[in-house]
Amino acid sequence: MTQHIPVVENILNANDRLAQANRARIEAAGVFSINILASPGAGKTSLIEKTLPLLKGKLRVAAIDGDIATSIDSDRAAAAGAGAAVQINTGGTCHLDAVMLNGALEQLDLTQFDLLIVENVGNLICPANFKLGTHKTVLVASIPEGDDKPYKYPGTYRGVDVLIINKIDLLPYVDFRMDYFTQGVQALNPGIVTFPMSCRTGEGVDAWVDWLVGNVHR
Amino acid sequence: MTQHIPVVENILNANDRLAQANRARIEAAGVFSINILASPGAGKTSLIEKTLPLLKGKLRVAAIDGDIATSIDSDRAAAAGAGAAVQINTGGTCHLDAVMLNGALEQLDLTQFDLLIVENVGNLICPANFKLGTHKTVLVASIPEGDDKPYKYPGTYRGVDVLIINKIDLLPYVDFRMDYFTQGVQALNPGIVTFPMSCRTGEGVDAWVDWLVGNVHR
Repeated sequence: MTQHIPVVENILNANDRLAQANRARIEAAGVFSINILASPGAGKTSLIEKTLPLLKGKLRVAAIDGDIATSIDSDRAAAAGAGAAVQINTGGTCHLDAVMLNGALEQLDLTQFDLLIVENVGNLICPANFKLGTHKTVLVASIPEGDDKPYKYPGTYRGVDVLIINKIDLLPYVDFRMDYFTQGVQALNPGIVTFPMSCRTGEGVDAWVDWLVGNVHR
Repeated sequence: MTQHIPVVENILNANDRLAQANRARIEAAGVFSINILASPGAGKTSLIEKTLPLLKGKLRVAAIDGDIATSIDSDRAAAAGAGAAVQINTGGTCHLDAVMLNGALEQLDLTQFDLLIVENVGNLICPANFKLGTHKTVLVASIPEGDDKPYKYPGTYRGVDVLIINKIDLLPYVDFRMDYFTQGVQALNPGIVTFPMSCRTGEGVDAWVDWLVGNVHR
């Protein structure tokens, strides 16, 4: 009888166990944490840049930015006012995992912060498979990506807690059927918390910031 | 002494050997072939939709479309005039590989075609690591993705033969420094064949179509 060796399952289990440890560590420090997912260029870093100035004086924020190369994102987070900004360079790996987040947490004194923002690698597929231990997962969709993305990337749309629809200022210039997009989202993730937004014009950012503040003070 | 087991290397070698077999099969049929990479929503399918009508009467085209779910892309390719359109659903896998292309080729009589267009899964990281056996790899970048993408996804920008810069009609509405983008591209891939384009307005599509026709008749 052939022996079944569930390697992939074990890797994920190991990741999930470490994600639980990350969560315990984050909660022990009284921090609320989010994991931001998106395609390349949907606006994860721009979202952080728009969010941080509005949190000044309200919340102390640490940012952890994942990328396969460069420190562009953590530099932008630091410039926007993050109290600490840690860059994870994955060296080619297409997602963050709980081990990487664990290593980044080692570099932070979490007790000095209220909110931890983790920016994942730009990828609409793989990051959804690896829990990090954060409280909420936030997906940034963007108008110019097109209205068929929920249908084509169902795993990611199904598994997130919050949806930001970014770049709504481009709606007049592209072919995007909001009803078709929304229908796809609702089929996969009914009632998901949604924020239409433009990180370029600032429209819709306030409601998102209120949501963050509300979660920290819950 | 610990034995080193180079599993990843062997997987890639096996993929590359099958990619060579795919190439031999494609060439035996006298077909020119491309592999199109891009982020989700950069415009791979729109490019195919704009290209096929301009090739009508000139080239016989087969399309193979990779996605983790749905047959939206191959339906669009068929509607745009592909002589054959094969959908590969990867079932969650974030890239096409040579095995998947091999399976799709089984469903085509390649001798009936001049050009094979393979549309990869929307992902700017993983597909670059898996050769399929096609002649040229084409990267579709898009203006709203932002000008920092060559810096953040160097592996993909380094490994491609042709760069299409899509959605140039959106340049007036976004912050995109073309010189910064071009500088990043040239550092990684000097002299790469580049086509600025708008699949929405049709601007720039003719030059790309001429390039395809020229390669088929080479």
